[in-house]
Amino acid sequence: MNVNFINPFLESLLNVLKTMASMELKPGKPNLKKDNIAKGDVSGLIGMVGPQTKGSLSITFEESLILEIMNNMLGERPSSVNEEVTDLVGEITNMVTGGAKKLLGDKGYEFEMATPVVVFGKDHTIAHKSDGQKIIMPFTCDHGTAYIEICFEV
Amino acid sequence: MNVNFINPFLESLLNVLKTMASMELKPGKPNLKKDNIAKGDVSGLIGMVGPQTKGSLSITFEESLILEIMNNMLGERPSSVNEEVTDLVGEITNMVTGGAKKLLGDKGYEFEMATPVVVFGKDHTIAHKSDGQKIIMPFTCDHGTAYIEICFEV
Repeated sequence: MNVNFINPFLESLLNVLKTMASMELKPGKPNLKKDNIAKGDVSGLIGMVGPQTKGSLSITFEESLILEIMNNMLGERPSSVNEEVTDLVGEITNMVTGGAKKLLGDKGYEFEMATPVVVFGKDHTIAHKSDGQKIIMPFTCDHGTAYIEICFEV
Repeated sequence: MNVNFINPFLESLLNVLKTMASMELKPGKPNLKKDNIAKGDVSGLIGMVGPQTKGSLSITFEESLILEIMNNMLGERPSSVNEEVTDLVGEITNMVTGGAKKLLGDKGYEFEMATPVVVFGKDHTIAHKSDGQKIIMPFTCDHGTAYIEICFEV
């Protein structure tokens, strides 16, 4: 899994949050360690299947951050994660993956997306069970941290 | 989504747990309600993409049940969910979906599987964000409850 394959996902996440929620998140240091896991309060997950590869993506948010994104995108800030928030996380997961799919398609890398699944639970952890390399990368702002994790079997 | 499409997944789950862990789970009543969500301690999720459809599957276990399955399959019972347990949940998710894929392929329904993702967090909830119908079904035994949820866009 090379950087050409990863960057479109990171770029797409920054794009989606900037254009939809007027939020500029600061990318942290990518981590390739095999035993690293993302931890947060609400996560969107999606499977990807292509002719040469298959994999999974997750975006995990701290509650404070996703509630602020909700407020910026929809003008309402629920006191905790509700169905509208999990719907939003599903939408963001779709948009980020769809944006990366378009960028990668332009470069000749093709895959199809499954439908997103959203997990809610205080301090849950996410482990991608693929034989391939995975990359996890934090994004931060004043309101909290999000982690994107991408994993492809080659 | 008709019963021909669902039964292979339920059959495959029963098969996997019976052959691999010598456990006979009792299927409960399937639920088609749109607002129903699975709740548990550790979940395996996988995306599916076919020519006509795409979707997602999750299998959610109560901790007591997955630890008993671990004990029956591998002869060791950790005191709580560790990486070996989440590996096992990923494997079960792969085996159940692979078994259903084979049964459905025999009937002319084709799909490809993404790679599994495992979520761990006490009392987390799972929401499949697909426009299609979804079905959720409990399986019980003395050691606890598992939920399988299958969701396909048509």
